[in-house]
Amino acid sequence: MVSFRVRILGIDSGKPIVILTEDDAADLGVKSSSRVRVNSSRKELTAIVNIASTMIPNGTIGVFEEVRRILHLKDNYRVDIEVAPFPSSLQFIRNKLMGRRLNHDEIHEIVKDVVEGNLRETEIASFITSLHMQGVDLDEATSLTNAMVDTGHFLKIKKRPVVDKHSIGGVPGDKTSLLLVPVLAAAGCIIPKSSSRAITSAAGTADKAEVLMPVNLGVEEMTKVVQKTNGCLVWGGSLELAPADDIFVQIEFPLSIDPLLLPSIMSKKRAANVDNLVIDIPTGTGTKIKTIEEANLLARDFIELGRRVNIRTQCTITSGEQPIGYAIGPALEAREALEILMRRKIVPEQIDKVCHIAGTLLEMVGRNNGYDIAAGILNSGKAEKKMREIISQQGGDPNVKPEDIVVGEYTFDVKSKNAGTLLWIDNNALVEVARAAGAPKDKEAGVILHKKLGERVRKGDSLFTLYTAKSRKIERARKHLEEVRVCRVAEKGEMLIQMVKDIPISKKAFILER
Amino acid sequence: MVSFRVRILGIDSGKPIVILTEDDAADLGVKSSSRVRVNSSRKELTAIVNIASTMIPNGTIGVFEEVRRILHLKDNYRVDIEVAPFPSSLQFIRNKLMGRRLNHDEIHEIVKDVVEGNLRETEIASFITSLHMQGVDLDEATSLTNAMVDTGHFLKIKKRPVVDKHSIGGVPGDKTSLLLVPVLAAAGCIIPKSSSRAITSAAGTADKAEVLMPVNLGVEEMTKVVQKTNGCLVWGGSLELAPADDIFVQIEFPLSIDPLLLPSIMSKKRAANVDNLVIDIPTGTGTKIKTIEEANLLARDFIELGRRVNIRTQCTITSGEQPIGYAIGPALEAREALEILMRRKIVPEQIDKVCHIAGTLLEMVGRNNGYDIAAGILNSGKAEKKMREIISQQGGDPNVKPEDIVVGEYTFDVKSKNAGTLLWIDNNALVEVARAAGAPKDKEAGVILHKKLGERVRKGDSLFTLYTAKSRKIERARKHLEEVRVCRVAEKGEMLIQMVKDIPISKKAFILER
Repeated sequence: MVSFRVRILGIDSGKPIVILTEDDAADLGVKSSSRVRVNSSRKELTAIVNIASTMIPNGTIGVFEEVRRILHLKDNYRVDIEVAPFPSSLQFIRNKLMGRRLNHDEIHEIVKDVVEGNLRETEIASFITSLHMQGVDLDEATSLTNAMVDTGHFLKIKKRPVVDKHSIGGVPGDKTSLLLVPVLAAAGCIIPKSSSRAITSAAGTADKAEVLMPVNLGVEEMTKVVQKTNGCLVWGGSLELAPADDIFVQIEFPLSIDPLLLPSIMSKKRAANVDNLVIDIPTGTGTKIKTIEEANLLARDFIELGRRVNIRTQCTITSGEQPIGYAIGPALEAREALEILMRRKIVPEQIDKVCHIAGTLLEMVGRNNGYDIAAGILNSGKAEKKMREIISQQGGDPNVKPEDIVVGEYTFDVKSKNAGTLLWIDNNALVEVARAAGAPKDKEAGVILHKKLGERVRKGDSLFTLYTAKSRKIERARKHLEEVRVCRVAEKGEMLIQMVKDIPISKKAFILER
Repeated sequence: MVSFRVRILGIDSGKPIVILTEDDAADLGVKSSSRVRVNSSRKELTAIVNIASTMIPNGTIGVFEEVRRILHLKDNYRVDIEVAPFPSSLQFIRNKLMGRRLNHDEIHEIVKDVVEGNLRETEIASFITSLHMQGVDLDEATSLTNAMVDTGHFLKIKKRPVVDKHSIGGVPGDKTSLLLVPVLAAAGCIIPKSSSRAITSAAGTADKAEVLMPVNLGVEEMTKVVQKTNGCLVWGGSLELAPADDIFVQIEFPLSIDPLLLPSIMSKKRAANVDNLVIDIPTGTGTKIKTIEEANLLARDFIELGRRVNIRTQCTITSGEQPIGYAIGPALEAREALEILMRRKIVPEQIDKVCHIAGTLLEMVGRNNGYDIAAGILNSGKAEKKMREIISQQGGDPNVKPEDIVVGEYTFDVKSKNAGTLLWIDNNALVEVARAAGAPKDKEAGVILHKKLGERVRKGDSLFTLYTAKSRKIERARKHLEEVRVCRVAEKGEMLIQMVKDIPISKKAFILER
């Protein structure tokens, strides 16, 4: 152990990096990208070494922001440094690469070392890739779920029953969570809903909820809201319910692989003390799961994994052929949800979906005629009242009206070039267009559909309208529209979908939502 | 494109990193670990963004050493920055992850993006892992070989025939290259030998050669030496014959996987203009390839890949059950090689191996009785003379004598606790002990064996001697000796190798030499 004087550098690389002089590094026997243990009086962490030629004198260690934050360092503090030991979990990853299944202890060690920064990103990427290529069996999924819970925070909620739902995603415009939380909370269930921001979609539930109220609550604030109102709608990112998953997802996203889907979802539900869970599996050509058989296989795994980690789980396989409702994009969707809660707008498929899922959860906790109870709560205005309570407790304006919600001031109408029936809508293309318009980062951006599947369209009818917050984004979205085909209007007898005359460049849409 | 003023930071992280202020990053629409294209007047590269809170003012870009070097930057130079485009090779990696084989163009694009820094390390790690798990077929191996050649430098050697040998490694004490180069060069063949430093072994050929002469030659210096002497013994690391491989190997090493073994070797031989190649495959329980069947399968792949990339290839399957000769460690091995060349020491197995490989290459280029020619060149002193020419041309002392070579002054003798026959030597354990003693970094460190397989041992006989350059390393090596079993002396009838009474911690040795 060698003692060093701290120099704060104010550089944020998203990783724990420390800088040593060439001499000090040689003395310690480390090189650039080696790992060292940094011990302050209170805490320790593993950091990656960079070498500086001139920036700092010998005996000084430059620290990046992540190290400063975690160790609470200031200039001229002293820390002790030693070469980080070889993580034994690396041997387990090597075993996995040789085709071995991993046992409980091995997976725990890997996940712990991921969270503590003892494994390199390349090693974690290799682990994730091997899980993807070899598949994760239920024993491994169980161990991964438990390990991710054990390395994260827990919600302390005493009230019961705690219920929740999770959608595996893939359908644009799905406002189910915004409606389900007030319905179930009004029915007396506890629903501590944490959700993600969009990764590949046009709007995550957290992005939508944030239009109506603050969602960056800490664990304690969140618990308080739930104690008072039975429910909440918060962003999961700052709760650290499963910090390993936040690291995994950064690596999975560019690779378009998602082998940790089940453990990721179930670990967060376990950490939130959920007893009864519905997993929604939107199914159809335009979403993640293409067939009902596939959906059933996935449902089987969720239910079995739920048994093993002590969460009663049922699944709803729902129609995912087209967007739900008309609005896509954070503000537009929040507005539509509020209109439904206020009974100003009827969106039958959205209401049906909410009542099915809420009804299932109500029956799982012992109530009869769940669907009717849920529908009654929506129709009576009790859900709206509950939503305004939650908005108020989370620090939003409880009297918010749909017309208060700011949506993109720049719009562009897409009109049908021919008459016919709307035969299909490409969910992925629609999401791409909404993202080109600025969603989810620009909350005001998005799309409003004017026609849904099977409706008659006349030549010149408006099919959908783009909304953007900035004028130059309208151009970008229009340009994008030229490259993709969002929907198809034709007479019902027309069979041809596409001609392929040369080798096509295949581009598979990837849906990653947590 | 936005113009920035350069600030040199003097930090070396081994990766191309630039630092932007929070404001500038937000304006460009990038975050920490995003990628940007940096354009100087002469060159451009892709760099990774870090964010600084205080270190630099807006409009300034801080650059790490790798960026400074490649773009030849100085303080206050101006560079243009834009967001790096999405690399299309990432789509090909995704296809591979879905189980698809990659075609020639896809592999070329991936390798190009690896070399140009357009792919993240996690993405490259995933690519390598998928190659490991799915296997690399010969079409892919051919494309990888060609792509690695196309993205690297070429040696310009006009003389012919160019011959070479490469060992896949795994046997400690193998001095074949140090002897083969002067033998073949003396026989009139061109052998531009570049080799690696040790990665997992106790001494790479470059480490051993460096004891006798400088090996860090550039492409031009190397070519000059070959023009004058027919041969050379240089370190391949600075030649950039296959820069993609240098990146791959950094990721493969901690994972203990090596899916690029064949393309890695063959690309460097192709870039060095080799026409005739012998691949040495040491075989036996203590090395990388355990059985003759395995060795034959690997030989088949090498020969077939050689055909496809236009290198006539044959393989030697050689005995790898125990170290070759007596010395292990850079200086000790260089000394033994010099003693063999000077005919001061007879090491029959080492001489036999050299004559077989040299003989094979001589016959491949049309000479008869290759083995005898090689033996004659060794015995007549022509090989020694040639070696001294090469040493001289590379800048070493042509009159170097074995006793000039400095070896570790701290030694420790390991004695047999019983009488019997030396039944086995664990190559991997021996390498670990030599590395614990300081090899390959301390050139003077290593091991000298006093007994070889099948020899009679009396109680108290010295089995081997450890050499270290520093006294504290003797302690480390002695401690290591308590944990591993390097060799076994017993009567010939004793059958038991090991008892297993509880779950053992398996630790597989990994051999990665390029």
